[in-house]
Amino acid sequence: MLTLGVSGLGVSSFADEPLSAPPTMAEVIERSTPADWRVLDPDNTLYMELPAGRVVIELAPGFAPLHARNIRMLVRTGYFDGLAIMRSQDNYVAQWGDPDSDDPRKARSLGEARDSLPAEFTVPVSTGTPFTRLPDADGYAPQVGFANGFPAARDPVSGRTWLCHCYGAVGVARGNESDSGSGAQLYAVTGHAPRHLDRNITLVGRVMQGMELLTTLPRGTGALGFYETAAERLPIKSIRLATDVPEAERAGLEIMRTDTQAFSQLVEARRNRREEWFKAPAGYIELCNVPIVVRRRK
Amino acid sequence: MLTLGVSGLGVSSFADEPLSAPPTMAEVIERSTPADWRVLDPDNTLYMELPAGRVVIELAPGFAPLHARNIRMLVRTGYFDGLAIMRSQDNYVAQWGDPDSDDPRKARSLGEARDSLPAEFTVPVSTGTPFTRLPDADGYAPQVGFANGFPAARDPVSGRTWLCHCYGAVGVARGNESDSGSGAQLYAVTGHAPRHLDRNITLVGRVMQGMELLTTLPRGTGALGFYETAAERLPIKSIRLATDVPEAERAGLEIMRTDTQAFSQLVEARRNRREEWFKAPAGYIELCNVPIVVRRRK
Repeated sequence: MLTLGVSGLGVSSFADEPLSAPPTMAEVIERSTPADWRVLDPDNTLYMELPAGRVVIELAPGFAPLHARNIRMLVRTGYFDGLAIMRSQDNYVAQWGDPDSDDPRKARSLGEARDSLPAEFTVPVSTGTPFTRLPDADGYAPQVGFANGFPAARDPVSGRTWLCHCYGAVGVARGNESDSGSGAQLYAVTGHAPRHLDRNITLVGRVMQGMELLTTLPRGTGALGFYETAAERLPIKSIRLATDVPEAERAGLEIMRTDTQAFSQLVEARRNRREEWFKAPAGYIELCNVPIVVRRRK
Repeated sequence: MLTLGVSGLGVSSFADEPLSAPPTMAEVIERSTPADWRVLDPDNTLYMELPAGRVVIELAPGFAPLHARNIRMLVRTGYFDGLAIMRSQDNYVAQWGDPDSDDPRKARSLGEARDSLPAEFTVPVSTGTPFTRLPDADGYAPQVGFANGFPAARDPVSGRTWLCHCYGAVGVARGNESDSGSGAQLYAVTGHAPRHLDRNITLVGRVMQGMELLTTLPRGTGALGFYETAAERLPIKSIRLATDVPEAERAGLEIMRTDTQAFSQLVEARRNRREEWFKAPAGYIELCNVPIVVRRRK
């Protein structure tokens, strides 16, 4: 079978390799220990229940504390239940929330939650978010790497750090004003990383499981990929905080830590692919091509 | 409405801007002249007819002459008609061809076409393919830019040039041997650009229209996103060369040229977004984020 390289984990072994050969990604994962993984914090994990299944989103309060808090409030009052995915633009984003939010007579109340928040496009490095820097240069930021599994960037001159728009990033839709977002409308990146959005909009988390439920949605035929009729929208059954879901119904995911030697080996395994299929290792990896490995907890 | 920036063409005007302000992308397109566009060559254009519509692919014989020729032969004998899309891996590729190609008793004959070809991972710069270089650095190649609308790279030291794995790129699936591809199995990139595949596999073209027909396919649940049952595969009604389709049934597309001043302005408009929504222009653009504008011929 012509497989076009190895992208999953079913990678061949290298029996003839010297023992000192750097491991492949599959070998890094195989050799990892429990300390190389962390369990998602249920207070920072959202379950968006769609007709076809669950999308699991991890919030990043270290980068967007105000927005994470507001979204938690909205979720806990059932704000999103019965709302809809109303936009799917090919190679860009899916977006959800209240389709009637512009109509004061029909818009759903945000309850106690704020309807606008100060921008959290970047935060001071001094907030103490961890950072494992990638060895390679990046065009969009002075430094890029990972903070607890989130692709992120830093600027040592300005002393600011921010989340990056890689595939699966979840952000807060806004109007033209920087403070016009609240978290009541969210989007997920479903295409090639739109890194030009970095530092222009508040990212608040990342889809950890269920991306295919968003990427396979029919594309909207309206401007910017909005669905033109209500019937085209995809209803959201509910969004819940994992804390509020009985333990037996939780996703039970764990994520490979990004501050370990195992992760550094994984990055190197992807900078220079050593699987037999590859003929010319790249010697480089772009931030959004680094896999963040998620698996069901053992 | 919270729109998350401007990604389509419905961009606001800038009545208050000084006349010397660099144009936005919408303005570049608005001001373009017929000389800024080229019509797709029907001898290098494939129509893949799926149940839900047509995927238009432009071949790049300048980068893969042997494979383009072989694919044309396969297409003209109706090789692909009734075959299937058999793989859809999220954030990676969709792949099509003969699901029975590994079974000598069932595999469809390639007829006069070759069943393997020398790799065309790169070609000499001296073949004369045009190249409009991007101003920005790239992690995967010494130089990147565009060749007749195809994202491409060059290495002045080795004197080689190659197509790049951006969203929509179409390539020739192969096994572990470099010469094990023929064009009878093809793939299209449906996710974040897997640039590590550059120089490892033969790219032969690019999807110009109909990407959403590939990106919305259900993801395969088998290894590497292959569909596990025949029923899950998507049948291909036919693949035709545009030359062989009556003119009235052709797609009638034109593409913005990439060797013009208008295109340079478009690139600059995307390196530094000047639309009102943006607060922090990136000052950079990654190769695969540059839009190649396709429209119906006027």
